[in-house]
Amino acid sequence: MRPALTLLSCEIFSGEYKNAIPASIGIEVFHNFTLLHDDIMDNAPLRRAMPAVHKKWNADVAILAGDAMFVEACRLIISTDIESAASKKVTDLFLKTAMQVCEGQQWDMTYQSRDHVSIKEYLTMIELKTSALLACALKTGAIIAGASTENADLIYEFGKNIGLAFQLHDDILDVYGDKSKFGKEMGGDIVANKKTFLLLKAFELASDHARKELTLWLHKTSFNDSGKINAVKNIYDSFRVKEHAEEEISLYYKKAMQNLDDIEFPEAEKESLRVFAQKLMVREM
Amino acid sequence: MRPALTLLSCEIFSGEYKNAIPASIGIEVFHNFTLLHDDIMDNAPLRRAMPAVHKKWNADVAILAGDAMFVEACRLIISTDIESAASKKVTDLFLKTAMQVCEGQQWDMTYQSRDHVSIKEYLTMIELKTSALLACALKTGAIIAGASTENADLIYEFGKNIGLAFQLHDDILDVYGDKSKFGKEMGGDIVANKKTFLLLKAFELASDHARKELTLWLHKTSFNDSGKINAVKNIYDSFRVKEHAEEEISLYYKKAMQNLDDIEFPEAEKESLRVFAQKLMVREM
Repeated sequence: MRPALTLLSCEIFSGEYKNAIPASIGIEVFHNFTLLHDDIMDNAPLRRAMPAVHKKWNADVAILAGDAMFVEACRLIISTDIESAASKKVTDLFLKTAMQVCEGQQWDMTYQSRDHVSIKEYLTMIELKTSALLACALKTGAIIAGASTENADLIYEFGKNIGLAFQLHDDILDVYGDKSKFGKEMGGDIVANKKTFLLLKAFELASDHARKELTLWLHKTSFNDSGKINAVKNIYDSFRVKEHAEEEISLYYKKAMQNLDDIEFPEAEKESLRVFAQKLMVREM
Repeated sequence: MRPALTLLSCEIFSGEYKNAIPASIGIEVFHNFTLLHDDIMDNAPLRRAMPAVHKKWNADVAILAGDAMFVEACRLIISTDIESAASKKVTDLFLKTAMQVCEGQQWDMTYQSRDHVSIKEYLTMIELKTSALLACALKTGAIIAGASTENADLIYEFGKNIGLAFQLHDDILDVYGDKSKFGKEMGGDIVANKKTFLLLKAFELASDHARKELTLWLHKTSFNDSGKINAVKNIYDSFRVKEHAEEEISLYYKKAMQNLDDIEFPEAEKESLRVFAQKLMVREM
């Protein structure tokens, strides 16, 4: 998805998409490097339905292969053959984003072992960990095409808002998605006590009684998975947490559409980005 | 040591050392990033006589802090404010070196679990893992100073050869150094079955009988440390392994001095690099 967005953005701003190929691959290699290291930290056994690198080989191999992929990502980014001021902008944006992704991952780990996380903190975390790279992919294409600073910043904001909407939609899908269509077990976030928007919102809205029940489930070390999922889901439903998440998604989606409206390029060109945004939002429930 | 070499090299080639400060720090931050990740892989408890990051906090923190340091190292390297062709050379050299260091670390890990490693393989491994960054530090200063390609390549070769001599000297110090002066327990490489130049040379030169004895010690899972150290050291002594290592060091040292002779700059300027090389070689035995 990310490399396609870089090329698309480059084309939309009347650039030659071929100029954006090395950078688009660099962004994808960078993303995969973070997956290798994240999977170690999350002790995730699978990645794309295959054994994760640290499971198939070992953690040392996953650390070092990740490092090497990061070097290769940097090499691809700086190999972008455009005039030097634009090239510097691409590299600066990439490194700034890379640091944000590291920061987001650190917050994610910190929040996992912390009792209270505010919704604001959660949104900042997913903005750093997920949205920043999506926004970077789009802005990179715009810079390579020679778009104005204003337009490049607007497409960055579009990416950031769509990324946030995407991640919140993911939180909903985990609980309310259709297993057969979504392709993985539902309720994984609930079982793992992941501090999603739904859980944090439930803590915010729930009655004292329901909050105590939630806390009990979070601290239980022995439980039946579907029992826990159903109990937590009932609390979510009682306090209309899903609807609140949908409102939040709608807010970010509208902001993203406004960003598109504000960009100065022909209406026809914006259509492909609108289609992309819509597709992200109608993944199967 | 590395940042000082970058600044020194820049000055020797009549550059303004201040221009080399960001890159010199970048190289040092990169080096420290590799230490964080290496210490996880080697399960090393200490670093500079303090708890290693993965021990003081945990492996996740060490992975992520290392990643962030790598991003910061890249940022420092590309922030070198010189004309764009030289700046590209500095970045290209840095990323090429970063990949070599990763490759060297992978070989180091691979060799640890492999029975037979040739001396040639060992030398290639330490060239990648240790010498390349030293050579890179020197060449970076030369490029920033605007040295000719020939001179920049010669100072790179000087760094590579001195780096190899340095690492082989380290192998000797571990076995034959003076504990009170060297500041750590002697024979650690022997206890840990580290495939040093001494061990590989011993396998090459030893009689069938001595080779069998060495192999026995390598596979023993329960032993008295000083017993193992003395037994292996006796085999080293019988086959004059230390002298062979010293000859190899002398060879690289002479090559390095030849590299200096070939560089076209005033004799007086070379003196500081000669002094540096000598200091590296006369660390306490």
